[in-house]
Amino acid sequence: MENPNSNGENQTFRVRKLEISDKRKGFIELLGQLTVTGSVSDEEFDRRFEEIGSYGDDHAICVIEDEMLEKIVATGSVMIEKKFVRKCGKVGHIEDVVVDSGYRGKQLGKKVIDHLMDHCRSMGCYKAILDCSAENKAFYEKCGLKQKEIQMAKYFD
Amino acid sequence: MENPNSNGENQTFRVRKLEISDKRKGFIELLGQLTVTGSVSDEEFDRRFEEIGSYGDDHAICVIEDEMLEKIVATGSVMIEKKFVRKCGKVGHIEDVVVDSGYRGKQLGKKVIDHLMDHCRSMGCYKAILDCSAENKAFYEKCGLKQKEIQMAKYFD
Repeated sequence: MENPNSNGENQTFRVRKLEISDKRKGFIELLGQLTVTGSVSDEEFDRRFEEIGSYGDDHAICVIEDEMLEKIVATGSVMIEKKFVRKCGKVGHIEDVVVDSGYRGKQLGKKVIDHLMDHCRSMGCYKAILDCSAENKAFYEKCGLKQKEIQMAKYFD
Repeated sequence: MENPNSNGENQTFRVRKLEISDKRKGFIELLGQLTVTGSVSDEEFDRRFEEIGSYGDDHAICVIEDEMLEKIVATGSVMIEKKFVRKCGKVGHIEDVVVDSGYRGKQLGKKVIDHLMDHCRSMGCYKAILDCSAENKAFYEKCGLKQKEIQMAKYFD
């Protein structure tokens, strides 16, 4: 008899907030598919988790877990900026969106963005913004975003 | 005898953090040269000032005051994002940079960016980023930034 767990169709995914136990579920390795992470000790992870948590809903990190494998397979974060413009409006800054290379084509990226957008709306943001490469533009257009400006950056030594 | 105060050469500028008294020095009107501000009551201003202040150095607003006129003539803000990538690195998000139309050509925009960049460095950021229109690209290049990605946005109803 075929093991149903070996069949991708039987995967179950849970969309939720980052939890402190997600370090052992491959969260940092997943971010490593996006950019350089370097080594992060358990202590460094826990400290950063608490620092971000101290902002409450103003800094939210969404993850999707493959529940069968207890593996984090997609993530994205949003930081809520409080402004004076737009009648003291708020803006959501979406960052660090990545889907595990073995889990693409399952709409998990869209699920992450939808979750973050819902969060921005519930926080009263008038807009959400993010920066991406030109090659990811089509994906974000499918998520309802439009190209606006250009991003400039300065790296420090 | 000529009044030295009427001579632009005698203007004195102070670069400093936003203070709660800056609402009556034209801070909101200055932001109105950048985008829609709407009307902001003293109570709304004070509340937002306190909310932003609660983040300490993680959300800094720089202003330049024309000390003779007690008028805010340039501003820019930066929000420090705490990440897991780059060995739990930090990124400065620069926002809402504007110089009063009557004070352009005096390098005040550059002073604002330099001040915000110094803040990012002192906070241990590995980079600072901002979004701008194509027409402002040359200004930010003079400030040491380079074009990286594209900005996408979604406006909520």
